[in-house]
Amino acid sequence: MKKLRGNAIVGQSGGPTAAINATLAGVIRGAFADECIVKLYGMLNGIEGILRENLVCLNDRFASEEEISRLEHTPAAALGSCRKKMPDISTGLDTYEKILEVFQKHDIRYFFYIGGNDSMDTVAKLSAFFANRGYDIRIIGVPKTIDNDLVLTDHTPGYGTAAKYIAVTTQEIIRDCAVYNTPAVTIVEIMGRNAGWLAAAADIGKYIGRESPDAVYFPEKDFNMESFFEDVENALKKHPNVLIAVSEGIRFADGRYVGEGQQSGAVDVFGHKYLSGAAKVLEGAVKERFGCKVRSVELSLPQRCSSHVASETDLCESVMIGKAAVAAAADEGVTGVMMAYRRISEKPYKIDVIYSDVSKIANEVKELPDEYINERGNGITAECADYILPLIQGEAYPEYIDGVPSYFII
Amino acid sequence: MKKLRGNAIVGQSGGPTAAINATLAGVIRGAFADECIVKLYGMLNGIEGILRENLVCLNDRFASEEEISRLEHTPAAALGSCRKKMPDISTGLDTYEKILEVFQKHDIRYFFYIGGNDSMDTVAKLSAFFANRGYDIRIIGVPKTIDNDLVLTDHTPGYGTAAKYIAVTTQEIIRDCAVYNTPAVTIVEIMGRNAGWLAAAADIGKYIGRESPDAVYFPEKDFNMESFFEDVENALKKHPNVLIAVSEGIRFADGRYVGEGQQSGAVDVFGHKYLSGAAKVLEGAVKERFGCKVRSVELSLPQRCSSHVASETDLCESVMIGKAAVAAAADEGVTGVMMAYRRISEKPYKIDVIYSDVSKIANEVKELPDEYINERGNGITAECADYILPLIQGEAYPEYIDGVPSYFII
Repeated sequence: MKKLRGNAIVGQSGGPTAAINATLAGVIRGAFADECIVKLYGMLNGIEGILRENLVCLNDRFASEEEISRLEHTPAAALGSCRKKMPDISTGLDTYEKILEVFQKHDIRYFFYIGGNDSMDTVAKLSAFFANRGYDIRIIGVPKTIDNDLVLTDHTPGYGTAAKYIAVTTQEIIRDCAVYNTPAVTIVEIMGRNAGWLAAAADIGKYIGRESPDAVYFPEKDFNMESFFEDVENALKKHPNVLIAVSEGIRFADGRYVGEGQQSGAVDVFGHKYLSGAAKVLEGAVKERFGCKVRSVELSLPQRCSSHVASETDLCESVMIGKAAVAAAADEGVTGVMMAYRRISEKPYKIDVIYSDVSKIANEVKELPDEYINERGNGITAECADYILPLIQGEAYPEYIDGVPSYFII
Repeated sequence: MKKLRGNAIVGQSGGPTAAINATLAGVIRGAFADECIVKLYGMLNGIEGILRENLVCLNDRFASEEEISRLEHTPAAALGSCRKKMPDISTGLDTYEKILEVFQKHDIRYFFYIGGNDSMDTVAKLSAFFANRGYDIRIIGVPKTIDNDLVLTDHTPGYGTAAKYIAVTTQEIIRDCAVYNTPAVTIVEIMGRNAGWLAAAADIGKYIGRESPDAVYFPEKDFNMESFFEDVENALKKHPNVLIAVSEGIRFADGRYVGEGQQSGAVDVFGHKYLSGAAKVLEGAVKERFGCKVRSVELSLPQRCSSHVASETDLCESVMIGKAAVAAAADEGVTGVMMAYRRISEKPYKIDVIYSDVSKIANEVKELPDEYINERGNGITAECADYILPLIQGEAYPEYIDGVPSYFII
């Protein structure tokens, strides 16, 4: 394989997670150690950083291992993110030519893009563009998303930490709810527009001898109000403190989101509907039906940025996949791929890092498979617990200074 | 001082915190070691547990130090809680006679009640009743509340951990919000109906070289919409990602809560209107005024039950005050008091445990003093930071089994 010597660039894109900086730390460690890569640039705010030539030399910024380690434990995207959707090559050639110009100017020969579904679309389009331009460059996508809904990878960096936060917080909310002996229903809303991977983590307790919510609902199964009322009624017969967990993306059989009433019509730049309020809607419904005390809790932003309760497995793997991206590009010469995890052993849990053609990944959604959801559609199966449990093992605590974590700022 | 030999009873009351079980662990350790106390009972669901004779022998339940330590790190009230308000002695004598009867039956000579404002009212009333009954018993209140709004104590058990959770989570949300470069305002709502102690913790960053929200508002200061808009406008001039923190209890000058000052008009799929929280109301106001992206986040229940990020100082002190309650009753013979912290040195921070007549404490609210809030009323002063910082020092992590904390269940 021909050695390709030059500079590299790395960027982050899409919604923040608690592990996207660990992957960046992996790319940094890999690039600093690779003899083919002279300098590593960071693009600020993803692909926009290239278009505006807003670059930072990471060799200068990360002079010490201590700084890289601090980055590793820092939530969100240290280089900034963007939600820019790349135009089609045919209609938006200018954008691609501008990127080529910046790459030529800085002798960029390696491009690493850490992101989710939409970011892999960017990687696929750039790969297609550069395939026919006679400019030698290796383009690699590295996945991240708390949603765990990317295909062709066993799981995604960032999922394990979000799942751990949800599993831990659910245990704490169950304890909190248990203190009174008057009937009360608490409804917890968990992120996950299209897939129930995060809500599934709330239900892990029942497979490790701990408590679990009375019912958990997922976007993969049609939400039926009467079945829901039955679940609540049965739970209230068993104990006064009922806990329900729902994915924000639960839908009725006709396709309407349960939470749709409140922000109807609003969409983001990718055309995704904004959602909020499935739990709030159910709170009203339970109050009307049962007349008991009801409250709803949205776990909200802390789900995706709680580095203080990071999964050690997630952070270690996230560093590893970043390093592997550099090795794949520099040592194996691959391009146009997304890095991925493959589970090679279940017990003991073991993975390796592979890669797949990025064009097969972009814009696909991996849902919870049928066998991970119980028959009634209101909880996970043991098989699902076996899948999730290894991903939340170990605690990777940040360094605290003056009682508060010391996070990295670029 | 006359030695009083007999059994003891302990209960928990009011809203859960992450430290009320640490205080229970302190009472257990103190009682188990004291030669005057034969057996220690727990009342289930506070005073209701006595009225229904729903008692559990804690000597049997806590056979090992390991179990007591697990209790110490468990959020909420392991013995259950209640919100029962004791009747006046004159009109509700039956209730008091019932309690006396249960105490006589079980030879209860020590009564420890861990709770907030309303619970101290119970302690005060019981003390008054037993003062004239010729039944020798020592009655002690031990404070707890995340709100930190009890008078005559430097701070309350439970506040340090809630404050730490808020300080940590604020740092993480700031990182999360920083990733995009398009103007956006995030409004975080923090617990605290009558006092701004918890919201104050969100602003600690600026005094320890970290980031802080652009503005923080407290119930102690009238909320003015025009000043708020000015604060947001000035912040948006400085950077695109604006973070605002508010106490749930902020009020307009006319006394109306901001959270009930307006109705959002939003309806769910059933056509139910709902009342917004303070942050939700401000979200709507900012959207209308500035037209930029706005979102609101309620920190909600995790603020009071996040044992996974407990303050070591808080938990250690909470154990200590529980032990001190037993010592005060058994060794010093006091009754009718609430235990309290006294700060005897600022730098280095040092406290001791004292007690005060419980009748002076019940139903008073301690607010943030003027000198803890800056002149504009939108942030804390250095003096306030000096007060809060010692309380959030150290990390007391629970034991994790299978990736999830192992919490105590009675």
